Formats: sequence, C-alpha cells, structure tokens
Amino acid sequence: MARRPAPPPSSPDSPDDIELQFYEALRQADIDKLMSLWADEDEIACVHPGGPRVLGPQAVRASFESIFSHGAVDVQPEAVRRLVTHACAVHHMVERVQGLTREGPQTAYVVATNVYVRTPLGWRMLVHHASPGTDESGAELGDNGALLH
Amino acid sequence: MARRPAPPPSSPDSPDDIELQFYEALRQADIDKLMSLWADEDEIACVHPGGPRVLGPQAVRASFESIFSHGAVDVQPEAVRRLVTHACAVHHMVERVQGLTREGPQTAYVVATNVYVRTPLGWRMLVHHASPGTDESGAELGDNGALLH
Repeated sequence: MARRPAPPPSSPDSPDDIELQFYEALRQADIDKLMSLWADEDEIACVHPGGPRVLGPQAVRASFESIFSHGAVDVQPEAVRRLVTHACAVHHMVERVQGLTREGPQTAYVVATNVYVRTPLGWRMLVHHASPGTDESGAELGDNGALLH
Repeated sequence: MARRPAPPPSSPDSPDDIELQFYEALRQADIDKLMSLWADEDEIACVHPGGPRVLGPQAVRASFESIFSHGAVDVQPEAVRRLVTHACAVHHMVERVQGLTREGPQTAYVVATNVYVRTPLGWRMLVHHASPGTDESGAELGDNGALLH
C-alpha cells in the first residue's frame, strides 16, 4: 500500500501527521510512539469502545498497554471529517478494525472523535473518544436522510 | 437547585453557557433551542450512545427529534473537564441520565465529549459524542490507577 513515510514524532507539522502516526502506533503496538503523540496535559482523555473515561497520561498509557498485551490493533481510519482552527483540530471518523476470531477474520466498526491541539512542540492529541458502531456496515446518517458508507 | 439563569441563545459568551443551554434543551425537549446552539457548519457531528455517526444539521436535528418523540431527557452533566484554547473548547464529562422503567426509576451513565468553536455569533457546539458508560457507578480511571467518581 502506498503511504507517505511518517515524520519523526519530534517534528509533526499537522494534525493529519499525528493521526497517521497514532494509527500506525496502534498497528505496531508501539506504546512509546503512541504516547509521544499526546499533549503534555493532565487533562488528556481517552474512551475506548464500551469503556470508561480514562484521564491523564499514566492512565491513558496503562489502558493502551492493556490493549497491546493482546497484540497490535489492525485498525484503519475511514471517512475522516476534519474541522480545523488555528490551534485546535477535530477529526471524526469510522475506524475499521480487523480481528481474528474462532469464526475466522471479522471486521468491526468504531465511531471515533480525535481532538488535536497546537502546542510548542507541534500538534498533539488531546482526546480520543471511540465507541462501538451500530452494525458491521459502518453506516452513518447524513443530511440527505440516507445511510452513508 | 440554585443555578444561574441561562443567557438567551443569541448572546452566548462562553462554552459553559452553550453547554448549560444544551443540557437544558435536552431536559425541556426544546428542539429549536437545542439546534440554535450548534455551529452553522455542514460538518457538525453527533454520536448518540450506541448509535452511528450523524453528520450535518438536518440529520442532527432529525436524530434529536426522534429522541424527543419519546419525551424529554432527564440528564445532568457531571465531572466536567475543560480544555480551552482561544477558538476551541473541549469538554468531556459523565452524563447522569434518569429514566423511568417498569422496575422504577433508573440511572444510566454516559461518557460524553463536547467540542465548541468560537464563531462570529459566539461559541457554538461542533461535536457531541456520547457513548454508554461501563456500569451504573459512573466510575472512571484516573492517573492514580484508582477508580474515580
């Protein structure tokens, strides 16, 4: 798959770069890379699908270590919508997560909101809120009243 | 309960004002008041607990009309955390939702992320992402590793 190389975490230049690295870190189960992408704030927050609110860098790190103890996460963001101001970027998307079950490969869909802020070190993640999608189609509702894919 | 009066929707002066009015509108099942609090953007997004991503003003309005067809929502935000820049504010919280079931009054907890942007008309809601909490305690994980309430 053609994909531009990710810049080093020390010189991110856009929310998209941070997001690219975030999902790479999930696919690589790379906890240090993943945590380097978050803002240096006590108030960072993460909600995993079906889980509680996780607050602060130590608790966020522990939550991802727990996930990675089961292996990497085969996840791809899709249908990303972006709302960007000078210092803040909000991305929402559908995450397609592939897993291997007893019944074979399965695909699950997760609805996610990622919030990034511009810091002295560059753009960093502030909030990752993910919740289970309603079905396997990844469908969503748009303004025309129709299901979108 | 002592609560400062909400300013009219035409002159909001902080994300907290918009948030106050958002939850008032839910408790009042007031669809016009509720929709007046959103940014005038095609990209506004809303995720109701367990639901799909809803995109755009018409679809967001329809989703709340569907909810209000069952009556008002007895909801109170709790444990609100705020991250504010000049033009963007991110609030995350636990929503306590009271409902009346056959077994009597029940309380459910919802984890929510609300994003606000500063517009020429004042602060407006950009994203409301709500997902089911894990249990009835409203517990969450903090940096000390302990459950918070």
